[in-house]
Amino acid sequence: MQPLADAPATHRSAYEGSCASSHGDGRGIREVLDRIGDKWSLLVIATLERGRLRFSELQQHIPGVSQRMLTLTLRHLERDGLVTRTVHAEVPPRVEYELTDLGGTLIGPASAFAEWAIAAFPRIEAARAAYDERV
Amino acid sequence: MQPLADAPATHRSAYEGSCASSHGDGRGIREVLDRIGDKWSLLVIATLERGRLRFSELQQHIPGVSQRMLTLTLRHLERDGLVTRTVHAEVPPRVEYELTDLGGTLIGPASAFAEWAIAAFPRIEAARAAYDERV
Repeated sequence: MQPLADAPATHRSAYEGSCASSHGDGRGIREVLDRIGDKWSLLVIATLERGRLRFSELQQHIPGVSQRMLTLTLRHLERDGLVTRTVHAEVPPRVEYELTDLGGTLIGPASAFAEWAIAAFPRIEAARAAYDERV
Repeated sequence: MQPLADAPATHRSAYEGSCASSHGDGRGIREVLDRIGDKWSLLVIATLERGRLRFSELQQHIPGVSQRMLTLTLRHLERDGLVTRTVHAEVPPRVEYELTDLGGTLIGPASAFAEWAIAAFPRIEAARAAYDERV
């Protein structure tokens, strides 16, 4: 797997970098966070961790995703270079999706993020219930 | 800082947990990912890493956020128990925002995620340009 280029921003706080929209790339970084942070992208990346899958297999592993949302999410991930789409010349054509090397580098951070959400969820739910009683 | 409760899900793949919507809490976890993954939430959490801040200070540190988006984001984060809002009885009233203990536990994972986005951004931009030439 090709390593990510060293980004000077990783040597200071990542957030300093992401906040620095007035210094050039801030808008882009935010756009990436916005795209990759959405739940369907995270779940697709996560599901493809197990290997190359067909559209219908992806759909089975991600309950609740609509055909349209899955199509859109895969197209965005393909455009971002995180997923490849391979069409096999068969009848009917078989289409498979797979993580690229760059997509593979997202597994670690996205996994830490998802683990946080899972661990924090009971406390978040309790906080919401308390808040809703107050207001 | 109070540690997060041990979640059994963290011992298998986090994604197995988040994919398991048919087994109970999957919808909730996805909702958390969706909320916390949005760029403004991440940027607010990041900015509050430096300590307690007033609304106007937050707004200065997060270029491009509208008053309305910042208000909404802070309200969601407060409801989720990640941020506290303190109103000081002064004239005019001074309102300050601060990370809770739970909010503080998000700094690490969110930072790894943001660092990934910063490091990956040049390759994502190159992938987009190549994709847009193909289609």
